[in-house]
Amino acid sequence: MSVLIVGSIALDTVKTPVEEHADQLGGSASYAALGASFFSPVKLVGVVGDDFPESEFEFWKSRNIDAEGVQRAQGKTFRWSGEYAWDMNTRETKSVALNVFETFRPDVPASYRKSEFVLLANIAPALQAHVLDQMEKPRFVVADTMDLWIETTRADLDALLPRVDLLILNDSEAREMTKETSLIKAGRKIRAAGPKYVAIKKGEHGALLFGENEFFSCGAYPLEDIHDPTGAGDTFAGGMAGYLAAQGGDPTFADFRRAMIYGSVLASFNVEAFSLERMRTLQQHEIEERYRVFRSMSQFEVVT
Amino acid sequence: MSVLIVGSIALDTVKTPVEEHADQLGGSASYAALGASFFSPVKLVGVVGDDFPESEFEFWKSRNIDAEGVQRAQGKTFRWSGEYAWDMNTRETKSVALNVFETFRPDVPASYRKSEFVLLANIAPALQAHVLDQMEKPRFVVADTMDLWIETTRADLDALLPRVDLLILNDSEAREMTKETSLIKAGRKIRAAGPKYVAIKKGEHGALLFGENEFFSCGAYPLEDIHDPTGAGDTFAGGMAGYLAAQGGDPTFADFRRAMIYGSVLASFNVEAFSLERMRTLQQHEIEERYRVFRSMSQFEVVT
Repeated sequence: MSVLIVGSIALDTVKTPVEEHADQLGGSASYAALGASFFSPVKLVGVVGDDFPESEFEFWKSRNIDAEGVQRAQGKTFRWSGEYAWDMNTRETKSVALNVFETFRPDVPASYRKSEFVLLANIAPALQAHVLDQMEKPRFVVADTMDLWIETTRADLDALLPRVDLLILNDSEAREMTKETSLIKAGRKIRAAGPKYVAIKKGEHGALLFGENEFFSCGAYPLEDIHDPTGAGDTFAGGMAGYLAAQGGDPTFADFRRAMIYGSVLASFNVEAFSLERMRTLQQHEIEERYRVFRSMSQFEVVT
Repeated sequence: MSVLIVGSIALDTVKTPVEEHADQLGGSASYAALGASFFSPVKLVGVVGDDFPESEFEFWKSRNIDAEGVQRAQGKTFRWSGEYAWDMNTRETKSVALNVFETFRPDVPASYRKSEFVLLANIAPALQAHVLDQMEKPRFVVADTMDLWIETTRADLDALLPRVDLLILNDSEAREMTKETSLIKAGRKIRAAGPKYVAIKKGEHGALLFGENEFFSCGAYPLEDIHDPTGAGDTFAGGMAGYLAAQGGDPTFADFRRAMIYGSVLASFNVEAFSLERMRTLQQHEIEERYRVFRSMSQFEVVT
């Protein structure tokens, strides 16, 4: 089953204590689409400016990412610039130029509207809802969000939640959203607000998944060196959604568990290089191998 | 195989945002001994004052904890008082009265010296070394430590490390000890300084285990309410050591994995009530049941 993905497409300038790269492909939809494409065909919705490299459209085509839904607007592509602190855990946004993204209203092409699996990557909740409004009969909806929307458009986010099957957010966002210190309480409280499933990402500490009477916890793939954490969460969401879509529209909790691991595996590759560089050359067999290593590192009762 | 455990025995006064209890049994050896006793007989080494409740000796006896090595000194028992912040993650030490602990030199009774399995619970590294010096031929040595010793008696700690098979410490201590942000780098660096295995505790985020070419990562048991985090790390160390000792003196990496889970399970019970109260009534079948729940929450490829 293919995944419709909507989100931001940007050209990022990222600085870490050791490197700096300008105008690299970024944005929530770019990361999510590439992550999902390892498991399912992708239909991409977004907007780029007239300065956006044509080569990226060719790359998407080569990866089974349908870019019919990517509008080409007059003006410059959305630009974001950020700098990571020495520990790579905190970052500061240096500048944001919304450009063509400022007036973006996602139009879902007619050929996309029957898509049953939707990933609303991180953009304003009102835009996420606008995409859902155009879908004929989505069977499974995944949404990602961020602190900005919790702080500035909370009503829109709250209205979206009952329409979401799986909400993905990080630990600080879950705490901020619920005012709960305990992530266990936070996860359950968010579930009660609408989403059937909630995944809380904890960065280097892994992720938690909450279902109605189900709970799953996994660590992160251990990495000694992180080159660029940008897009790790979007890649996680994309990988998770892509894997779930590949299982069909009615995933079991066992599917969710494996989807979280595949999301973690893809995110671990993503941070090994700047922008999407590592993901561009990533091979399926590398994903499967890291999945197996992941399993061997986290099982304590191996039935063989 | 029995476990010799040395550490502090204290009477603690603990305040949380909701409760306060005075003069409750505490200290690293008290928690570790009770944790270990669920799996192996314990030989306890420590010191108490003449105000120490006789009932605790009777309790130890009932739990197969041999207290012949607990000196009864003239004066008051070591007292510690602390207060937890609203989130239960940070605590402030309000007062410390070393009392009889100030001049404590752990004497290992003759009947203990043949013990092959030793847990050096958290006390000054010089005292931990003094205990090892008295042992005839220890086969497996576990040591716990804390920030205080990393900061004040680093040379003693460094000298101890090559004598240790498994070092247990928490994430902030591992970072402080190695000046590494990455826990993966920190764990490997500490291993290179001597211990064959290193376990890094991450509180609510679980724990990591490093062997020569082996790595294991597990989450924490999910708890909504924590009543008193005091002693969780000591209980983890005790449970881990007790389980390993029960497997004999030459544990496999699979034994280590399960030992980490049992340590986590015991720590999760410990924080459900003040002091050692939950641990006093804990039953073996409750431990096994939580172990099974733990497994079901963390497996993603169940081979059945």
